[in-house]
Amino acid sequence: MAFEVTNDFLDNLTELIEANKKIAIKALFEDLHFADIAEVLDELDFDEAIYIIKLLDSEKTSEILTELDEDIREKILANLSSKEIAREISEMDTDDAADIIGELSKERQRRVMNAIKDEDHAADIIELLSYEDNSAGSLMGKELVKVYETWTVGGCMRRIRAQASEVSRVHSIYVVDKQERLIGRLSLKDLIVAKNDQKIAEIYINKVDSVNVNEDDEEVAKIMSKYDLEAIPVVDDDNVLLGRITIDDIVDVLKEEADKDYQLAAGLTQDVEADDTVYELVKGRLPWLILGLFGSLGAVIIMQNFQTIMENPEYKALFFFTPLIAAVAGNVGVQSSAIIVQGLANDLIKGSLWSRLLKEVAISLINGLLLSVIITIFTSVLGFHFSFSMAISISLMSVIIIAALIGTFVPIVLDKRGIDPALATGPFITTSNDIFGILIYFSIAKLILGI
Amino acid sequence: MAFEVTNDFLDNLTELIEANKKIAIKALFEDLHFADIAEVLDELDFDEAIYIIKLLDSEKTSEILTELDEDIREKILANLSSKEIAREISEMDTDDAADIIGELSKERQRRVMNAIKDEDHAADIIELLSYEDNSAGSLMGKELVKVYETWTVGGCMRRIRAQASEVSRVHSIYVVDKQERLIGRLSLKDLIVAKNDQKIAEIYINKVDSVNVNEDDEEVAKIMSKYDLEAIPVVDDDNVLLGRITIDDIVDVLKEEADKDYQLAAGLTQDVEADDTVYELVKGRLPWLILGLFGSLGAVIIMQNFQTIMENPEYKALFFFTPLIAAVAGNVGVQSSAIIVQGLANDLIKGSLWSRLLKEVAISLINGLLLSVIITIFTSVLGFHFSFSMAISISLMSVIIIAALIGTFVPIVLDKRGIDPALATGPFITTSNDIFGILIYFSIAKLILGI
Repeated sequence: MAFEVTNDFLDNLTELIEANKKIAIKALFEDLHFADIAEVLDELDFDEAIYIIKLLDSEKTSEILTELDEDIREKILANLSSKEIAREISEMDTDDAADIIGELSKERQRRVMNAIKDEDHAADIIELLSYEDNSAGSLMGKELVKVYETWTVGGCMRRIRAQASEVSRVHSIYVVDKQERLIGRLSLKDLIVAKNDQKIAEIYINKVDSVNVNEDDEEVAKIMSKYDLEAIPVVDDDNVLLGRITIDDIVDVLKEEADKDYQLAAGLTQDVEADDTVYELVKGRLPWLILGLFGSLGAVIIMQNFQTIMENPEYKALFFFTPLIAAVAGNVGVQSSAIIVQGLANDLIKGSLWSRLLKEVAISLINGLLLSVIITIFTSVLGFHFSFSMAISISLMSVIIIAALIGTFVPIVLDKRGIDPALATGPFITTSNDIFGILIYFSIAKLILGI
Repeated sequence: MAFEVTNDFLDNLTELIEANKKIAIKALFEDLHFADIAEVLDELDFDEAIYIIKLLDSEKTSEILTELDEDIREKILANLSSKEIAREISEMDTDDAADIIGELSKERQRRVMNAIKDEDHAADIIELLSYEDNSAGSLMGKELVKVYETWTVGGCMRRIRAQASEVSRVHSIYVVDKQERLIGRLSLKDLIVAKNDQKIAEIYINKVDSVNVNEDDEEVAKIMSKYDLEAIPVVDDDNVLLGRITIDDIVDVLKEEADKDYQLAAGLTQDVEADDTVYELVKGRLPWLILGLFGSLGAVIIMQNFQTIMENPEYKALFFFTPLIAAVAGNVGVQSSAIIVQGLANDLIKGSLWSRLLKEVAISLINGLLLSVIITIFTSVLGFHFSFSMAISISLMSVIIIAALIGTFVPIVLDKRGIDPALATGPFITTSNDIFGILIYFSIAKLILGI
């Protein structure tokens, strides 16, 4: 059932646009989902995309705009008048509308808001714009079905028919008291099953999950996925009902969060994507490469200080193992920090820091021992002295332990200080482990071999 | 609003269990959400967890069982009789029931299924067990509200009241023809707004998204999040309605998918978690470390072949830069492969493989040039010859290009062959880049310096 943007489709469309065949183009998009149309527009030349947006009904284009790639949307909005944008915004749900208006300049925001005819809609959007980024308020929409506890089921049904026309999907019906404070919920199902003359106060469910409007969006995502909620009401400090967050917005939060962690671990500045320009991709990659480079340059200086070892024909081979030491230190560090980052995200990091570090030492000893066995076999096959093998094995073991401790300690400490622990993965951890690893390696080897 | 398992809570609970104070314990759990109770049980000793499960009502424990950590659930199920398990299963939705029964041995499955009294429920579960893992069928539940196009709105409401009692949340009402084929959908809202004597055929929406029962679960997740669906009906090849998948199951699929990619990139075998035992953690980490070790040992052999360079006092410093070459090659390779893996997941990898490789070369040239400038400054400060700096810079540039090409090429090829491209991230890419990097570095440096 999934629609795919094919080259044939695009060629056909481009021809129709050139020939200005409006009816044929409208027919082409008639049965397409707005998410699919957005995909098509992402592929078109910019002038063509503008042409399509101006051609289609605002009911459809408003949905398309919310689905478009941010870069392309920005360009398209820059080519629409404030009035045209206001028309699109009027068709959107308040949360989508606020997101898109938020991308405009302050001056442009003011002009678009003035051009919106529905004053309630405009007031809702202005309220949503006032909440901080990454808060529950920035995620929520004002569209919801609300009933007062004093209403009857019959009266309720009549009013819901009116309210529901503005709400695309009825998740839950929220029950409030006279002061607009959230006191419970109802499902449409409950209402259908109840008798017409019953009071809402008699039938509503007084257990209702809610989040504060200032709650962090990742926390909201955690709560909704833990309790399998499809919508959650948002309240202020006095428990007054302000809006609701739906699960589709949470799916986006979870995806962004996962993408961010993945990109940090891979040494990419957030929001770099495969279809970005060469310039954007360089900007997203170069800083991390430079960070890594400085680590390695530190290692160069350390090795310079140990260069007399090269004059010793028996031990100069120590230098053949420096990439190995750095690689193992890096791999161990990334493993440890990744486990902590995922553990923190899933609330699995319990108990004291000491017990966790001790666990890492135990794991490192076992891993180190087994890697040492392989290295000992390898070096004896190559004809190295046993003492040489021992020096490498013992320093490797120390390097593994230190790398594991750094990989565990740093993200936990960052998290405790309110900094994103995912920063401590990837190039950051491999860079510091490069320097420490090489330093420890040569120091211990020198000690053991007596050079 | 989020509940947290505190030490005080656990101490208090343990005391109550020791004193066998059943009523007090029940009261303690009275107001807790089953997801919270599952968290408490994850923290308890095993005997205590069993005690709680046997104490609480099966209506509550069935929900708790679905939320428990898999390891703990397995142990608990092993301590319940087939009859007790059957009682829990009877209270569950069919999809959860099938997941849990699927974890039991074949013999145990048979005995539990025989002990389930509701034959329809049992038949549904057996059907769900027959679908392949990671297919839409394995995700779907049989609970849905279905109406025939020939019904009237009034008759429909009556029947829905009956059907809905078994369905915890009514997402959509699916409309089928006489042959049970899916032909459309309706929302409860549409039904409430319609007149009692209208026919369903007159009011239903004949556009309905659906997925085939054999569709891959990640594809289902993509479709549902792209189209912002909260539930999607599942059909067989003849379009006969079989079940429905809800968004909360999709949230789990997305999370698992993201975790898997992240762990592969970090060099962890899937499903390793922070609270696993030392043994499990070693098992999840060691294989990747050994893989990386072999790459580095390959680099050792390559360096042995270039060891005469060490005798040259001017050029022996080339060996100080081997960790740098390996680190840059590794970082570039991970960046490139991560961008491809994320791009493939989000359908951003379009155009030919050649144009993508060309883009990587362009990015590599820019990154390489800038890193070379830093290296040239660094080496001249340390007092190295300009020709030495040039040799390092030019070989670094070549290494960056090769690493970027490997990082781009391998995941794309894996994906085309139906293999998970995420396998090509992390240790795999750094290992191969270690070997290639060092080889290219010394070969080019030798050529340039004429040694």
